[in-house]
Amino acid sequence: MAAIIFFLALLTSNSMAQQSKQMARIAKITVDPEQLQQYHYALKQQMATAVREEPGVLTYYAVADKENPANITILEIYADSAAYKYHIQTPHFKKYKETVQHMVLSLKLVEVDLIASANKPGI
Amino acid sequence: MAAIIFFLALLTSNSMAQQSKQMARIAKITVDPEQLQQYHYALKQQMATAVREEPGVLTYYAVADKENPANITILEIYADSAAYKYHIQTPHFKKYKETVQHMVLSLKLVEVDLIASANKPGI
Repeated sequence: MAAIIFFLALLTSNSMAQQSKQMARIAKITVDPEQLQQYHYALKQQMATAVREEPGVLTYYAVADKENPANITILEIYADSAAYKYHIQTPHFKKYKETVQHMVLSLKLVEVDLIASANKPGI
Repeated sequence: MAAIIFFLALLTSNSMAQQSKQMARIAKITVDPEQLQQYHYALKQQMATAVREEPGVLTYYAVADKENPANITILEIYADSAAYKYHIQTPHFKKYKETVQHMVLSLKLVEVDLIASANKPGI
């Protein structure tokens, strides 16, 4: 029993340590409404490639305001700041930045800490 | 071969139809800094219970601004608007609202559409 409690405590503390190293942020982006579809395409490509190819890119959610779809919010979670620094040097990220440079009207980055997340399995 | 393509097309269109029914939004919350820990506790309880017990509550991410941890952003995704209407009638949601009513200084809800998400498996 003591061994089980010790093991559970170890798991929990390890998971908490991993989480405390994580780097999360919110990007608030305004896109040229005339180029919204092209922007979506470039963003989806970047997100899918980064999560598939980079071990340290954990999570992306991109949403558009219903009232003004040109206002986009992206939640980004990386394993740690080294993973983020690696990410912005990758060919797919550089290609994304180059592709969207004349589509993005404004970009605001807000550094955040993850309080908690909850997900249905498989989603 | 034709059968495989048909099946894949069916899978894709079904997944897209499910996603288009989804209801997503961002809650922007300012919490009384003196009660931040209590607020975190109530929020985590609510999120975990809703995702565990309600089939239509799919995803929550709650983050706090690093510069001002009293500014909290929550991304919420429900299977559809019926799932959301059910959610706000549940005992755990009502308990959360009652618990935090004197902790929350402001609340702004922004209806959004999910453009895309990408997650590492198991995260």
